[in-house]
Amino acid sequence: MRELLEAVAAGDVSPAEAEAQLAGYATNGAGRFDAARESRSGVPEAILGDGKTPTEIAALAETAAETTGRAIVTRIEQAAATAVRERLAETAVTVRWDERARWLVATTADFDRPTLDAHVGVVTAGTSDAVPAGEAAMIAREMGATVTRIDDVGVASMARTIDAVDRLRDQDVLVVAAGREGALPTVVAGLVDVPVIGLPVSTGYGHGGEGEAALSGMLQSCTALSVVNVDAGFTAGVQAGLIGRQIGALR
Amino acid sequence: MRELLEAVAAGDVSPAEAEAQLAGYATNGAGRFDAARESRSGVPEAILGDGKTPTEIAALAETAAETTGRAIVTRIEQAAATAVRERLAETAVTVRWDERARWLVATTADFDRPTLDAHVGVVTAGTSDAVPAGEAAMIAREMGATVTRIDDVGVASMARTIDAVDRLRDQDVLVVAAGREGALPTVVAGLVDVPVIGLPVSTGYGHGGEGEAALSGMLQSCTALSVVNVDAGFTAGVQAGLIGRQIGALR
Amino acid sequence: MRELLEAVAAGDVSPAEAEAQLAGYATNGAGRFDAARESRSGVPEAILGDGKTPTEIAALAETAAETTGRAIVTRIEQAAATAVRERLAETAVTVRWDERARWLVATTADFDRPTLDAHVGVVTAGTSDAVPAGEAAMIAREMGATVTRIDDVGVASMARTIDAVDRLRDQDVLVVAAGREGALPTVVAGLVDVPVIGLPVSTGYGHGGEGEAALSGMLQSCTALSVVNVDAGFTAGVQAGLIGRQIGALR
Amino acid sequence: MRELLEAVAAGDVSPAEAEAQLAGYATNGAGRFDAARESRSGVPEAILGDGKTPTEIAALAETAAETTGRAIVTRIEQAAATAVRERLAETAVTVRWDERARWLVATTADFDRPTLDAHVGVVTAGTSDAVPAGEAAMIAREMGATVTRIDDVGVASMARTIDAVDRLRDQDVLVVAAGREGALPTVVAGLVDVPVIGLPVSTGYGHGGEGEAALSGMLQSCTALSVVNVDAGFTAGVQAGLIGRQIGALR
Amino acid sequence: MRELLEAVAAGDVSPAEAEAQLAGYATNGAGRFDAARESRSGVPEAILGDGKTPTEIAALAETAAETTGRAIVTRIEQAAATAVRERLAETAVTVRWDERARWLVATTADFDRPTLDAHVGVVTAGTSDAVPAGEAAMIAREMGATVTRIDDVGVASMARTIDAVDRLRDQDVLVVAAGREGALPTVVAGLVDVPVIGLPVSTGYGHGGEGEAALSGMLQSCTALSVVNVDAGFTAGVQAGLIGRQIGALR
Amino acid sequence: MRELLEAVAAGDVSPAEAEAQLAGYATNGAGRFDAARESRSGVPEAILGDGKTPTEIAALAETAAETTGRAIVTRIEQAAATAVRERLAETAVTVRWDERARWLVATTADFDRPTLDAHVGVVTAGTSDAVPAGEAAMIAREMGATVTRIDDVGVASMARTIDAVDRLRDQDVLVVAAGREGALPTVVAGLVDVPVIGLPVSTGYGHGGEGEAALSGMLQSCTALSVVNVDAGFTAGVQAGLIGRQIGALR
Amino acid sequence: MRELLEAVAAGDVSPAEAEAQLAGYATNGAGRFDAARESRSGVPEAILGDGKTPTEIAALAETAAETTGRAIVTRIEQAAATAVRERLAETAVTVRWDERARWLVATTADFDRPTLDAHVGVVTAGTSDAVPAGEAAMIAREMGATVTRIDDVGVASMARTIDAVDRLRDQDVLVVAAGREGALPTVVAGLVDVPVIGLPVSTGYGHGGEGEAALSGMLQSCTALSVVNVDAGFTAGVQAGLIGRQIGALR
Amino acid sequence: MRELLEAVAAGDVSPAEAEAQLAGYATNGAGRFDAARESRSGVPEAILGDGKTPTEIAALAETAAETTGRAIVTRIEQAAATAVRERLAETAVTVRWDERARWLVATTADFDRPTLDAHVGVVTAGTSDAVPAGEAAMIAREMGATVTRIDDVGVASMARTIDAVDRLRDQDVLVVAAGREGALPTVVAGLVDVPVIGLPVSTGYGHGGEGEAALSGMLQSCTALSVVNVDAGFTAGVQAGLIGRQIGALR
Repeated sequence: MRELLEAVAAGDVSPAEAEAQLAGYATNGAGRFDAARESRSGVPEAILGDGKTPTEIAALAETAAETTGRAIVTRIEQAAATAVRERLAETAVTVRWDERARWLVATTADFDRPTLDAHVGVVTAGTSDAVPAGEAAMIAREMGATVTRIDDVGVASMARTIDAVDRLRDQDVLVVAAGREGALPTVVAGLVDVPVIGLPVSTGYGHGGEGEAALSGMLQSCTALSVVNVDAGFTAGVQAGLIGRQIGALR
Repeated sequence: MRELLEAVAAGDVSPAEAEAQLAGYATNGAGRFDAARESRSGVPEAILGDGKTPTEIAALAETAAETTGRAIVTRIEQAAATAVRERLAETAVTVRWDERARWLVATTADFDRPTLDAHVGVVTAGTSDAVPAGEAAMIAREMGATVTRIDDVGVASMARTIDAVDRLRDQDVLVVAAGREGALPTVVAGLVDVPVIGLPVSTGYGHGGEGEAALSGMLQSCTALSVVNVDAGFTAGVQAGLIGRQIGALR
Repeated sequence: MRELLEAVAAGDVSPAEAEAQLAGYATNGAGRFDAARESRSGVPEAILGDGKTPTEIAALAETAAETTGRAIVTRIEQAAATAVRERLAETAVTVRWDERARWLVATTADFDRPTLDAHVGVVTAGTSDAVPAGEAAMIAREMGATVTRIDDVGVASMARTIDAVDRLRDQDVLVVAAGREGALPTVVAGLVDVPVIGLPVSTGYGHGGEGEAALSGMLQSCTALSVVNVDAGFTAGVQAGLIGRQIGALR
Repeated sequence: MRELLEAVAAGDVSPAEAEAQLAGYATNGAGRFDAARESRSGVPEAILGDGKTPTEIAALAETAAETTGRAIVTRIEQAAATAVRERLAETAVTVRWDERARWLVATTADFDRPTLDAHVGVVTAGTSDAVPAGEAAMIAREMGATVTRIDDVGVASMARTIDAVDRLRDQDVLVVAAGREGALPTVVAGLVDVPVIGLPVSTGYGHGGEGEAALSGMLQSCTALSVVNVDAGFTAGVQAGLIGRQIGALR
Repeated sequence: MRELLEAVAAGDVSPAEAEAQLAGYATNGAGRFDAARESRSGVPEAILGDGKTPTEIAALAETAAETTGRAIVTRIEQAAATAVRERLAETAVTVRWDERARWLVATTADFDRPTLDAHVGVVTAGTSDAVPAGEAAMIAREMGATVTRIDDVGVASMARTIDAVDRLRDQDVLVVAAGREGALPTVVAGLVDVPVIGLPVSTGYGHGGEGEAALSGMLQSCTALSVVNVDAGFTAGVQAGLIGRQIGALR
Repeated sequence: MRELLEAVAAGDVSPAEAEAQLAGYATNGAGRFDAARESRSGVPEAILGDGKTPTEIAALAETAAETTGRAIVTRIEQAAATAVRERLAETAVTVRWDERARWLVATTADFDRPTLDAHVGVVTAGTSDAVPAGEAAMIAREMGATVTRIDDVGVASMARTIDAVDRLRDQDVLVVAAGREGALPTVVAGLVDVPVIGLPVSTGYGHGGEGEAALSGMLQSCTALSVVNVDAGFTAGVQAGLIGRQIGALR
Repeated sequence: MRELLEAVAAGDVSPAEAEAQLAGYATNGAGRFDAARESRSGVPEAILGDGKTPTEIAALAETAAETTGRAIVTRIEQAAATAVRERLAETAVTVRWDERARWLVATTADFDRPTLDAHVGVVTAGTSDAVPAGEAAMIAREMGATVTRIDDVGVASMARTIDAVDRLRDQDVLVVAAGREGALPTVVAGLVDVPVIGLPVSTGYGHGGEGEAALSGMLQSCTALSVVNVDAGFTAGVQAGLIGRQIGALR
Repeated sequence: MRELLEAVAAGDVSPAEAEAQLAGYATNGAGRFDAARESRSGVPEAILGDGKTPTEIAALAETAAETTGRAIVTRIEQAAATAVRERLAETAVTVRWDERARWLVATTADFDRPTLDAHVGVVTAGTSDAVPAGEAAMIAREMGATVTRIDDVGVASMARTIDAVDRLRDQDVLVVAAGREGALPTVVAGLVDVPVIGLPVSTGYGHGGEGEAALSGMLQSCTALSVVNVDAGFTAGVQAGLIGRQIGALR
């Protein structure tokens, strides 16, 4: 650190540059919306809808659109989606809302989504994995990856899993969502040679329910998985996107 | 109950018969060794070696051999195995000790092991499942079943699992042992149409270690498993044996 | 596996046969409804009502009826039951709905339920065990077993338990449901010589509530039980049915 | 409180009396050994051997013998027992040491053990319950109760339990020790009309092992038990003794 | 057991007597309402209102009143209380309903409540302990004890606790209810020489909330408590009542 | 941050000052021993003996003595204490080792311990709390506070607690150590008007053992405690010392 | 204690004084509202709104205002806030209600809030920490401290944390609220030399959700934190206030 | 799958090719050592030393060296390392053993380690993270990545963390190991724009000890981490290596 500061003292580095280098962000007026997050950490800032009113969500979405050209909201219900549409009626040129996976993405006219030459597969064991898988697929796409959904290949019917092998092997990185006992990521990781991110889903009841069995099973997997928390589709998708950035920047 | 007692009062049923009917066992002198267990519940009484001295184990084994013609000891170490051999030098004609699976079975000259026309498959994911799987196989055999070991077919290398399908389908009932994430019983149950008993094994470390992830995964399985406690190979083998008794008595 | 593939190459085995042998199912158009599940694994595919809308349930039930001649729905509420009745008004000849145990079974004119010469006893400790016990009884019956209900024999009044001994001993396999401390399966397994499947029920509050005490007690039982998850009546019934298939196919 | 203090001010109550009434003990020189515990709370002070050196135990035992005429040590191993014997060679007239239940009681010539007209039954499911049951029996006896041991009546062989009903009903209060699934206290409480104290024992392995299943089962019991912690034989025996004091003081 | 049966065979004991002795209850038509519970185990049978409709509760209350002269309902809301009043309008002469503690007791003209010469103290740390404490007090009274409430003496203001010492010492047995950290029973047991039953209450949030901290603290108490489950006021009151029966029968 | 950097650019602040202000420490050669910790955060850096060899501990102690004039080691056994003594034979003028509380403090000739006008009370419920309480007392003293030990005032004998009230009230801040149910900090906090830091101790066995009951009880306390982790005497003492620094700097 | 009582006997101390000294409070008619709490333990008594009706809250608030000149209510919703305003329309001269942090404070004309020369910083990682942080700030202010809010400095954007260093270092004691992984208090404590109280917040879902990860992380912190329970903002603020009393009384 | 099988039937695909495509491995004689694992899933097969005898480890290492040209052993102690050296004295040309991180790698003369143009950073918070971090670094290197160690940058001294920013940003993917509260990966992920894999370490005691707090904190991280199980350095390194393979294959 001292070298940098001596460079500032010597006038070789401007204070602003030093700040950016030390702090990883440039000060702007966006306040609580971390507008610089993407440039600093490669992760687009998103608004978590849970626990916010439609009005609050719409206001944050407006700030997001104004400062970064895009607003991403997760876990958003219909009323809030409507509020955002109305608030962004003039600002945004596209507003996509996925009712089932509960995300919304709005972009302005001058927004330029990044494009990566990287293939992310988002895999589900069954239909109850749709919400977190949908979040993962959305954010990986927003980060620029080409996303392929490979659905309904749970191990209760192993033939379906095996039939999907070619599609699984075509991807550069896989997010595999599964609830109950969460065996699918383990089986998939034994069939492919790319990184697999396990995404446990909060299905199941009784002992080990709420996704706890799936999570602990993925952590104990006899294959080499990395894992995110239960229902953390956003985190899984971001991890896949970050890996994609590393791959795709080179292509 | 009153009908029975009135029958006793009327002399139609002897007190001894009534006792057997009400209590499920006939009084004998074997004391703490529940010599009547097999006739009552179909389960041979076994001696748990853990926490007993070689001398205590040997004495109980002698009682077992004298009252039932057979002594079964589980979780027995070398010193105790030697003590049993010495104590039963004259009583028993055969003494088998499996050092790895840690069981010992001794039989007298007039012991007649039951024979069932039932096939029990005991399946392991890997070599670390050998101890509880060995217990399960031993007791199922002692109950009269034909036991087949199908080893080392864990899902990390799915092809090995699939190669075993024919052998798996040849069995009447399966005990499937697995540690870590415990996915094997789920995968097997999706491939066969016979009852599968999941046997979680206390391998693994960290979160969900000590077999807890395997247990909760089997309880949450998206296929239809029944389950026993972690490392409870004896219980799993007895369940398979009891199912075998139902099947085999008819053949 | 290579032998099979060489047989395909040699023309001795058709690709379709090889597929069925390798995959365990024949491809059909039923999509997500695993219509082939019963032929592959002996377990009728059922629709879990929880978390689905009446419309979704009705649509799945229609597919089920069309592809397998029968629709089985568990955890279904009145509105969905009505929707299914309406949707299947022409397809199905019988629609049975158990409001308390919350299952619905509809069959078409040409459906032929299997018949097994096997007796499954479904036992409850008290009235609060009715829902999972009802699920277990239903699916065991649908798999072809003769099911006998033995209710309200909890150990708080041991005489009731003992009075039921004869009926308990008449069964080939028992599913025993109990909540709170879950002692009934242990006591029953000490009185009979057939396989007992413990079914913990989510009654009870405070420490060990929600069925956790019952589950851990059954896993620790000093008799030989196999166990399913809390409230997993469907799984318990299927296990009993699979055992029944092994027994009954021989009679 | 003010009334008492006004009485002190008025000279109607001496400071010492006030202290005893307020504090529940009279100051003496015994320091850390709570010599006044028995007179205050009815519970003889005992020395917990775990984590103390033989020398420390012997010193505390000497203080106990000198101040109360009796030394009670629990969880004491052979070396410490020998040390106590030597240290008390002149002070004590009797020293009893139970190697298995791991307690030691020494008394001086002028010690007068209380006598209660109260019958405490200490019941075990099996031999592995001997240590905490032995502690419970010892302390109840030291508090003056007549203690009857009723051993080896676990529910795996229900007939043994039922055969013991008469002996169980002869007691005024029961301590019932059980490990594994801990069903015995529940069954016993359904058969008798006296208070039953459940004593969970740290047997069992896997999920719910270390006595946790037994504890949670007793807390969830469908009969009316009160419970102590796992292996807390001393506490269970004291509770029984305190109940005995209430009963026996009247006889 | 054989002696009894031989006595039946010999005609010395009638079948009905044998049944009562073996089973602990006499068969009657009351079905699921265990009308004989009180005579067998000393505990009045009570109806748990939770999870039952007003109509079901009223019907069970009617059966209870007809067979035992009294109906006791716990965890009952206003609608059900009204339904019971209407149903028992002619049968019962008194109907008491405690809205806060949520119990209802109805008695018929010829009901004769037992009377014990035993004093049960029911103690609370604060107002949030009122519901389980109220249950405990009610059932102890119904069993015949003289019940004294000693309220609001939590240890946060130790002077209140100490001011209550005389009243605490006047009781034969104490039920002490406390939530949060549950320290009150420990403090009380150090001040009195009668049996103390700890009753943890489900107050508190965060780690150790829902009564778990109170329960584990009481189980770990450095004084000698017995404990019931969280919010199990009924069980605590019954235990106190059973102790009272032992004491009071002698006075 | 920008202001500071502009000041550096303007030459108003030297790079070294900026570094110290930004980073909170000055670079020196002590490497892993965070020699600057005390000046930055007010906490003397200490060496945790657990898991290190005597040689490693001695080497680190030497570095500590050389760079800060003092070496503090916690959880140190006899062999390591001897190794430190030998290694520091010439460097240190005093070496104090508390065998029971397992800490060692060595100082050089020119070391000047800070002095605070602040009184820290370290309170124990019983003798088993000595180790963490000893750690807390040591580090608070090394930070300059006047430390008073108030031992053996557990609530099982409430009079001892109350007798200590005056001494408790004389302190500026209290660390209160207790195991088992951990009630003492709650009781103390109700009697004094200074901050109380609860220090749970890993005594106790069975449910809530290993200090978990004490911890959760302190977190749930109906008085206002702050808490540290189980056995974290060092942390508790540092917190008290930091509070003392705030108080004492003013006196 | 005896000295005090002898002083009472000698007339040197009045009974009232002795009571106050022994008990820590003076008897008054306020009943359940512990009006003397502040004078005894330095903590203003507050009314917890959760689980009370608006009417009950208003009545308690009136008693509080009458006996102490101030009413503090936490976790209060709008309806209750309105009820309190109406009830205190004549008594109170100021009523402040924070809708988001859910507290209300009313004071009478003659109330004189204490003033301490002590600076308490209340820090949040993000907006979801507002409720417990608001509680902490309020009660610290009511105890007389000068409170500074330092918001939105979570470690996901480390530059924001570092930018706040100067404001953090200006405080005498810090309360740091954080949910999710709860890393902020650890980072802050490494940057300042004043006592830091960690306040875990119940955000987050899945494994470690509901604030459990934040709590355990703060307990395990590699810096020296003291901690309160999840969402226990009131307790954290009181601790900070008590520390402030020690500091500020001297200034 | 059918297409492939039809191609086999048509002679377009050989059975061996079909097998490889379906099963993901070619049959060879290596038995339990999954020699084909690397070609199938990109992960070199490693031998886990824990729970195996030196002789067993040496035999497996020999098979590994013979079939793949390399033997990798993790968690290996000195005796086993010596046994491997002796057994491979002639086969292997290099044997490296890291005593601290407990791994051993031996290679034969003709072994050709893969080379990836990918940079993996392995980061530790402190010295106690060395073992799992060492495992991670070793396996990533064996997979061909360039591995950089960035040690001792824990957040207790934030300046050290910030000083490492440039080195952190130079990597393509980071494995960040931390015990205790596990905050380091969260802080690092906020400073860089590459994928971060959190590796919790089993340091810490008391509540959340054994790495559980670190694991749950990483799962709850407010930045986007993926996570492996406690101490699962091998898994973390493999994940980093697999990501490296995707990146490096392109360079």
